This record gives sequence, structure tokens and C-alpha cells, in this order.
Amino acid sequence: MENTTQKATNVTWHDGEVSRLERQTLLGQLGATVWFTGLSGAGKSTIAVAVEKELHKRGHLVYRLDGDNIRMGINRNLGFSAEDRTENIRRIGEIAKLFVDAGLIVLSSFISPYRSDRQLVRKLHEDAGMNFIECFVDVPLAEAELRDPKGLYKKARAGEIRNFTGIDDPYEAPESPELVLPSHQLSLEEEVDAVLKKLAQCGCLPE
Amino acid sequence: MENTTQKATNVTWHDGEVSRLERQTLLGQLGATVWFTGLSGAGKSTIAVAVEKELHKRGHLVYRLDGDNIRMGINRNLGFSAEDRTENIRRIGEIAKLFVDAGLIVLSSFISPYRSDRQLVRKLHEDAGMNFIECFVDVPLAEAELRDPKGLYKKARAGEIRNFTGIDDPYEAPESPELVLPSHQLSLEEEVDAVLKKLAQCGCLPE
Repeated sequence: MENTTQKATNVTWHDGEVSRLERQTLLGQLGATVWFTGLSGAGKSTIAVAVEKELHKRGHLVYRLDGDNIRMGINRNLGFSAEDRTENIRRIGEIAKLFVDAGLIVLSSFISPYRSDRQLVRKLHEDAGMNFIECFVDVPLAEAELRDPKGLYKKARAGEIRNFTGIDDPYEAPESPELVLPSHQLSLEEEVDAVLKKLAQCGCLPE
Repeated sequence: MENTTQKATNVTWHDGEVSRLERQTLLGQLGATVWFTGLSGAGKSTIAVAVEKELHKRGHLVYRLDGDNIRMGINRNLGFSAEDRTENIRRIGEIAKLFVDAGLIVLSSFISPYRSDRQLVRKLHEDAGMNFIECFVDVPLAEAELRDPKGLYKKARAGEIRNFTGIDDPYEAPESPELVLPSHQLSLEEEVDAVLKKLAQCGCLPE
């Protein structure tokens, strides 16, 4: 799988007659991707769901991309090898970019364990003048394993699941994320507030 | 590339706490995919751009997926072989579905020459209770080749491009599309009206 090669020829980027700015004006918000990264069980989806709920309540159009949902659809032909994980994140990054172009606030929650993959997604956004907020949901492995909400750590320790992040596949922590949320030390409300504050600072929400 | 195999295990579809219905209510529209199919040069993108403009003017959130744009991004690692064309359309179908789930009206304009590929996209939508409007932009090959807006037919006839639909790759016309637009016989305004009428009939727009 060649991830970075432009294989298709005779193609050019078409600007639609309706611009991103016009869609953002219609929606009263700027598009942005909030990218939650962290171990399985760190609380990424819990925070994303709570942020989604609060933003919707305030009249914002927000959409949540979730590892599980995406893997049932567009990425159903990918597994959990290092190569497939990279292609998984690349595709999600491109989808997030399309949503931001449409004017939406995207909340993506994926383990996304490799630094280079997240860097690619960041670059996709930044090159297109789009907001990208990397949010590290940071809990110790022992804490995530203690929670084990889906029983996956137990299976990984038993050797029933392979290439499991934190057990037999690495998690590379972000070096300079826009946000760090130690979910074992903060309340869900504090976490939601921190994300909303960051979105407001980026100009995505009215102050 | 296994297109229809669920390779990832331990995944389930998560319903977000904000529902599709709630997003549609926020937007005052139902999501839908209008899928323009037809030969290169048939006028798919021209119609899509005009529909996009008119819907936006009326306050609707609409997003256009375009073969060229998509091929610069998520599908940059796909070419024009039969296998890659199938994967191209499958991915676009899954992306359209995500956008419809987010509440948007999606206008996708792709040659999408194979009946089975379009059938897959239709099924993806219908299984999820989503509107799918297949719109066949139907012009004779001779007419499309006469227009040749990008000079691609000329290159294909000269053997400079291979696997070109209508020349050395087949176009399989839809058997029962929701709309047929013979763009050599209709004005752009008539075409836009026909699409809007169909969207209204589906309940996507207020009557």
C-alpha cells in the first residue's frame, strides 16, 4: 500500500463555487478537528461524546469519528498491523479534513499510537489552513488496564489479541499536543471545559 | 484488497449520544446522497456545482465530493484499474454515508462506471435508512467526446491514457436510477430543478 504516492494522474483540486468560508458563515462556527489520542481505556470516547453533547446543545454542528464506527465502514478492509494502522489513521485524517472543509467540528477518538501518523494528519490540516487540536488523553498504562472497559487488556495479556497498544505494540506519546487531559485526575466536566476553551481560543466558537 | 471482508475484530457500531435526527433537526434538512454518474464530460460536476450553489443560497448545508478532489486526498493511493476503481467508489460511498449521518446533503460526481459498485453504495445507504438518489447524467459517447473539456478523450484515443471509460473501459448505465438527466437536451436550470424536486420528494427539503 503506497500511502504517500499520488498514483492517480490527470487530477487537479477543484474549488467548489461555494467556499469553506461560506459554509462556516452559514453554520456560525469554524471547522476544526479535535484529535483525541491515548491508550485504550484512557477515556477518549467518553470525553468526545460529552464534548459532542455540549457543543450540540449550544447549536453547533459536530460529528464524532470513532475507531469502532470507522472500522465497520470505510476501514473494514484494514487490520491492526503497523502498516494497516498507518493507513487507518491516514484515511481518518483525510475524512476529518473533508468534514472540516464542510464546516464541521470533528471529534476523532482513536488510539493512533504512532507519532508519525498523527504528524501526517496534523500536516494535512495545517497545509489546508485548518485547525488541528491534538488532545492527549494521558493515563498510566496500569490505570487503563485496571479500567479495561471492554476486557481487551485481559485478552491481550492472555495472548488472545495481538498487536495490542501498550502490551505488544508501542504507544508513542505526543511531544507537544495542544491539550493534555489526565483523565484519572480530572472530572469529565473539567475535561469538556478544557476542550471548549481550546476551541474558543482557536476562534472556532463565539467567545 | 478485500473490499467486503470485515478484517478488524473486536469492534462494534457505537451510537453517539447526539443522534442523526438531532443533527438533522439542527440543520432543518434530512441528509441525502445525490450520486451523479455518467461518462467523463457528461456534465456531472457542472450540475453538482449548480445544485450546491442553489441549495446553499436557500440555507442548506451541502457538500460536494468530487472525483478529482477525492483522488488528491484519501484515494491518492488508488489508480484506475478495475480493482482500484471499485475500492475508490466503495470508499467514497462510505464517506458519503458518514456525511449523510452528519445531516448533510452530499453531491457526489464520479464516473462510477460499474453497476455493482454503485449498487454497493446504494445498499450502504439503504441499509442505514438513508436517502440515495442515483442521477444518471446521460449523454451519448459521441457528444461527451465532442465536448472533451479536459482533452482526455483525445489522449485516450491516442493511447496516452489507458483504462479510460467509454474508450477502453466499459460504462455500465444504471438500470433504474431515480433521475435521468440528458444534459445535451436540458438546460442547466432544468437539471437543477429536477434534482431539487427529487430532494423535496424524498423529504430532504421543506416543500
